[in-house]
Amino acid sequence: MSDSVKATNITWHEGHVKREAREKLLRQKGATLWFTGLSGSGKSTIAFSLEHALIEKGRMAYVLDGDNIRHGLNKNLGFSAADREENIRRIGEVSKLFADGGIICMTSFISPYRKDRDQVRELHVAAGVPFVEIHVATAIEVCETRDPKGLYKKARAGQLKGFTGIDDPYEAPTNPEMVLDNGKMQPEEAVAQLIAQLEKMGLFRS
Amino acid sequence: MSDSVKATNITWHEGHVKREAREKLLRQKGATLWFTGLSGSGKSTIAFSLEHALIEKGRMAYVLDGDNIRHGLNKNLGFSAADREENIRRIGEVSKLFADGGIICMTSFISPYRKDRDQVRELHVAAGVPFVEIHVATAIEVCETRDPKGLYKKARAGQLKGFTGIDDPYEAPTNPEMVLDNGKMQPEEAVAQLIAQLEKMGLFRS
Repeated sequence: MSDSVKATNITWHEGHVKREAREKLLRQKGATLWFTGLSGSGKSTIAFSLEHALIEKGRMAYVLDGDNIRHGLNKNLGFSAADREENIRRIGEVSKLFADGGIICMTSFISPYRKDRDQVRELHVAAGVPFVEIHVATAIEVCETRDPKGLYKKARAGQLKGFTGIDDPYEAPTNPEMVLDNGKMQPEEAVAQLIAQLEKMGLFRS
Repeated sequence: MSDSVKATNITWHEGHVKREAREKLLRQKGATLWFTGLSGSGKSTIAFSLEHALIEKGRMAYVLDGDNIRHGLNKNLGFSAADREENIRRIGEVSKLFADGGIICMTSFISPYRKDRDQVRELHVAAGVPFVEIHVATAIEVCETRDPKGLYKKARAGQLKGFTGIDDPYEAPTNPEMVLDNGKMQPEEAVAQLIAQLEKMGLFRS
């Protein structure tokens, strides 16, 4: 096979393809959409629906969440303070790589500490990559009523220690780009608002 | 703005977009191309040129290398045996995420140990993601003559310990998908062979 290959059309290059070249190809700008909020607040549900909606519109999106991170890249991290910090740090670095690739990368993690989220923001700002912090601010009473995995029940019973919102703090963002309340708003409306926000930011080319 | 947004076209979804949907959008299949070889063998030069060639052809590609990994995701790792293993493990996990995203992800790291590379391969096989191991088998004499960063010189002088090929082993792949010798082959030819291989694997749709 290699005998027949012509190398004449291949230009020689040093260094990475520039972000702009990939963005031109994808007709969009890369960005990280960082969803933060309590367990059961609806972060993943909103992120997945936005992902589906974007792909249907021909836009490249990818979600990082517990499913593909906690069992993979971060499977060697536990829930100590240091490990929680490292968990968010790694997710921040990976989301930045995806966004640098021209992709709309969504992350869906409780990420309760302001300091950790601010470090991820800094990382993006330094690289010139858009960072959109989205506080899914569903009230804890609503989250606890939903309790899809029975975690609040366990935390209230003292069987689960250090649970965010019960015996560990959730530090709400002080200046997020968006606030969505999945207790007061249908998820479809949340997704529509998010798409409008991305359009407003000029992330899409026709 | 949000007042005017219509949510009527948004369908509700649980769970990640399937890989196939992104691949359809990108008209390609995701894959990891794992370049392994000595320092100075030409891994990065070949990977970057392939990246440029693919983007020019309208294909989505992204390179992970020392530049964007060692100063970011893996900046808290040193060069102990455990840290080297963890370095490759994390890169393997991230490349799998990119490939799962439908992207042709190239990695350019010496990755001298067979066991570490085989674990990355296993990870991809388990996820049903194509993994292409490319041994850039440029002879050490050629690499050492090039020595762009002066590392071989330092290693020979004993100023650099545990340098692959000098006082630390390079375990060549036993069954790589491709072998390229950048000492005997122009890089343009290497890139042409790689593209032919990707076409043969059926990664591209017209």
